[in-house]
Amino acid sequence: MNIVRLLLILFLFGSAEAGKLLVVPSDGSHWLGMKPIVEELGRRGNQVVVVIPEASLSMGPSEHTTTLTYPVPYTKAELEGNIAEELDTILSIDMTSDLAKFQGFLFSLNILQTLTVRSTESLLFNEDLIKKLKDFNFDAILTDPFEPMGFDALLTDPFLPCGTIIAHKFSLPTVYFLRGIPCRLDEAAAKCPSPPSFVPRFFTGYSDKMSFAQRINNMILTTVEPFLCQTMFAIFDELGSRYLKKDTTYKELLSHGAIWLLRYDFTFEYPKPIMPNIVQIGGINCAKRDPLSKELEEFVNGSGEHGFVVFTLGSMVSQLPEAKARVFFEAFKQIPQRVLWRYTGPVPEDAPKNVKLMKWLPQNDLLGHPKVKAFITHGGSHGIYEGICNGVPMVMLPLFGDQGDNAQRLVSRGVAESLSIYDLSTEKLLVALKKVITDKSYKEKMTKLSAVHRDRPIEPLDLAVFWTEFVMRHKGAEHLRPAAHELNWIQYHSLDVIGFLLLILVTVIFVTVKSCMFCFRKCFRKTQKKKKE
Amino acid sequence: MNIVRLLLILFLFGSAEAGKLLVVPSDGSHWLGMKPIVEELGRRGNQVVVVIPEASLSMGPSEHTTTLTYPVPYTKAELEGNIAEELDTILSIDMTSDLAKFQGFLFSLNILQTLTVRSTESLLFNEDLIKKLKDFNFDAILTDPFEPMGFDALLTDPFLPCGTIIAHKFSLPTVYFLRGIPCRLDEAAAKCPSPPSFVPRFFTGYSDKMSFAQRINNMILTTVEPFLCQTMFAIFDELGSRYLKKDTTYKELLSHGAIWLLRYDFTFEYPKPIMPNIVQIGGINCAKRDPLSKELEEFVNGSGEHGFVVFTLGSMVSQLPEAKARVFFEAFKQIPQRVLWRYTGPVPEDAPKNVKLMKWLPQNDLLGHPKVKAFITHGGSHGIYEGICNGVPMVMLPLFGDQGDNAQRLVSRGVAESLSIYDLSTEKLLVALKKVITDKSYKEKMTKLSAVHRDRPIEPLDLAVFWTEFVMRHKGAEHLRPAAHELNWIQYHSLDVIGFLLLILVTVIFVTVKSCMFCFRKCFRKTQKKKKE
Repeated sequence: MNIVRLLLILFLFGSAEAGKLLVVPSDGSHWLGMKPIVEELGRRGNQVVVVIPEASLSMGPSEHTTTLTYPVPYTKAELEGNIAEELDTILSIDMTSDLAKFQGFLFSLNILQTLTVRSTESLLFNEDLIKKLKDFNFDAILTDPFEPMGFDALLTDPFLPCGTIIAHKFSLPTVYFLRGIPCRLDEAAAKCPSPPSFVPRFFTGYSDKMSFAQRINNMILTTVEPFLCQTMFAIFDELGSRYLKKDTTYKELLSHGAIWLLRYDFTFEYPKPIMPNIVQIGGINCAKRDPLSKELEEFVNGSGEHGFVVFTLGSMVSQLPEAKARVFFEAFKQIPQRVLWRYTGPVPEDAPKNVKLMKWLPQNDLLGHPKVKAFITHGGSHGIYEGICNGVPMVMLPLFGDQGDNAQRLVSRGVAESLSIYDLSTEKLLVALKKVITDKSYKEKMTKLSAVHRDRPIEPLDLAVFWTEFVMRHKGAEHLRPAAHELNWIQYHSLDVIGFLLLILVTVIFVTVKSCMFCFRKCFRKTQKKKKE
Repeated sequence: MNIVRLLLILFLFGSAEAGKLLVVPSDGSHWLGMKPIVEELGRRGNQVVVVIPEASLSMGPSEHTTTLTYPVPYTKAELEGNIAEELDTILSIDMTSDLAKFQGFLFSLNILQTLTVRSTESLLFNEDLIKKLKDFNFDAILTDPFEPMGFDALLTDPFLPCGTIIAHKFSLPTVYFLRGIPCRLDEAAAKCPSPPSFVPRFFTGYSDKMSFAQRINNMILTTVEPFLCQTMFAIFDELGSRYLKKDTTYKELLSHGAIWLLRYDFTFEYPKPIMPNIVQIGGINCAKRDPLSKELEEFVNGSGEHGFVVFTLGSMVSQLPEAKARVFFEAFKQIPQRVLWRYTGPVPEDAPKNVKLMKWLPQNDLLGHPKVKAFITHGGSHGIYEGICNGVPMVMLPLFGDQGDNAQRLVSRGVAESLSIYDLSTEKLLVALKKVITDKSYKEKMTKLSAVHRDRPIEPLDLAVFWTEFVMRHKGAEHLRPAAHELNWIQYHSLDVIGFLLLILVTVIFVTVKSCMFCFRKCFRKTQKKKKE
């Protein structure tokens, strides 16, 4: 990116009515989710500048936008190598027990700490780039503040706090694009109430209808969360404070967000309170569908009345340990459906004929095919929405992060079966697959859920574009910012008021009781005196 | 309405794809707000049946709908006579003091009790009509569950609970159309959190930024509200229980609402938590604007550079006590603007020439005229939105109900001045009028507020129509119903869980302390023994 081109852009767009937007995206599937918004904003005449690292997994130039890159202290190959290594570790741990979950949590914390500091510094402390960006005089920033709900983000997106920190550096109103932040930091930052009595916490696997024991656990987790988060976000807090040269926390920085574009809706998430500046754009990723290639079309059409099954474990897991892979091959051998599997690992000699292995799958296009019968997925929110949009029952194999909770949400709606990949057997997989394919209730419920999801007054992409442009036009969304931001935790929960009222109540009771006792004693003494007399 | 026509309608629409909707509206300005939705729904091919009393103030047939009427034990003239009488009483009380506000509250309670029972019975216990309605086999019901925020509703709409009760009788999903219910019964029924630390209660006149003392008052009111409401809604509870032959409350009946169409947005209301099934349609009433009549156009154009002022006190107040009216005439005499005043009372001989008195004003059309300078209004939500839509600074004269709070909201945004009509003087009115007309900040802030209000991804009318049709298509909006509805008050607030955890904590502390003391005593005794030995 040379200065001449930059100046040309500034000249061409600088005086235009349309807005100027800085985009700091995340890698992996999150970039795929954000890309259509960014391109549409560019197409509509806004000047959109996307800042990405030189080495990344899936990020690259997008249409109608300007892409600026910055050097990072690693190559793409190293990144991919790292991921493969870490995945092996993750897949070898049974994540179903609470202890393992906690280990996984610590493990991700470790990755985060290792990668974040050196990577964010590549961007934040790249003075030339920051100066260039400053000169653009942007109207707003669109960024992904944290996306560790699938573990992939933890591995590939150590730049997560960059967008938020730059927004403060440049005093820009911010539009966030995310699924959620662990420990509900997003809700805390947006001052969104989240009653623990019917809003299950992440990693609990609870539904919104909890037993007394579950509500106790949920409450304990709610109390512990802020402390867990403090450790987790300490590096972000330190980085923000150091860079902005003021004592701050990541939560405090996040709380200035103008609009929160949340990648869910209530066909997937349990209904819960929201705030005026929370905009739901669940299903934004499944708008675009292309026709299948001739080869794929022939394969799936050849499946006859039995149809076919789509099997992927997310954008990053295309291999499995050999023993684990065998479980799947054995199961697929015994079903009449054809199977399309995104898999690049070793293939056994007796691999069944009905299975087509591919390096990459056009997932949404396949799920939209009339012959598709089921979707085997790890339960990332992107895949889930592609399943919901197209009304395909699922077999879920949650691996990490929010995936267990995601699976639980669909199981509770009767549209999916969930299995643990760690103690998976051919039999278990067969039972689950047959169930979602032959038991009509799964398809019926999924069709209804899909109809409700797609029946909306405005498409999620249009909504995301509208609110981003709104923030550019009005330099924020001040009218949607609750006064709660000016209260501390004690004031927000009215604890000072309750304490004061209790103090008055206790004082009144104390004075009353004392007065009564005093009167009583007086009377009693008089009676005694009289008696003595 | 004869049976043949009914059968014809059933034959024509019975099998159509479009939905069948029962509408039970409210009178006065609320009907004017709901009418465009109802007509649009009819125009789109839905079968819309509107049920209204034979005698009403403003309700009548609407386009593309079927209107059914039922007899009531009073005439339109009696209704209007009643209102004039009650208004005199209301206008003679100074509503600014807290005591007066409470008197006003009791007073409205009284009207409510007198009118409600005999009027609702005219509809609910009209067996022929109810049977006819039943035979329509509706998909949903659209109704105004309570609209006492302006006192007019209390006087004219005693049928308020009818729609909700009929919905239960027919087991129909319900769409509510309202501004709010006193004591926040709507929020309680929708299980919407409303933290008293930044959500001011009605009738307090507080903003969302409260002092410690104000937060104490707000908290006390929050505690007292449910008890106040219990008295207020006891007649509705009794009526519902008697009619549905089961023990129920109005709140319980309301809580089954599928969608809440709320006639506000956050350019007017303070930002606060909302629930997924709350849809904001503030400003729905100012979409339609017609050109002015030739006479009016000439009058306002003749105002020259000074422009003109619009003055109305709501759809029901067209007269004022003579002394009060004189204050206005005197003030208007001293301003260079022309004035359009909806007034039917006695006119003094020396009435100023710049004032045009009219029986009825095309309020929204006038407020949209480029020469309009200010809007003098009582602060009903309809008028306020017409002011906001058209960006006109206001002088507010709140009379009753929510109007004081409404005025406060606009004053806190710097787009209006508020005066008490009870101790109004010509000077005070002149000062306020000059301020909003000549101090440019009012117009500037109002223009910004108006721009933000009108900048929305979808028009409120389309949103209202969409969600009503959604409820018809899917027989409700189950996916937006929070699990909180299955919790009682103690469970919702996790008081049982907190109690249990405290009990454990106390037990643990008690046992620990006792054990320590026991050990300590043992050791102490041994030491003593040794010493003795």
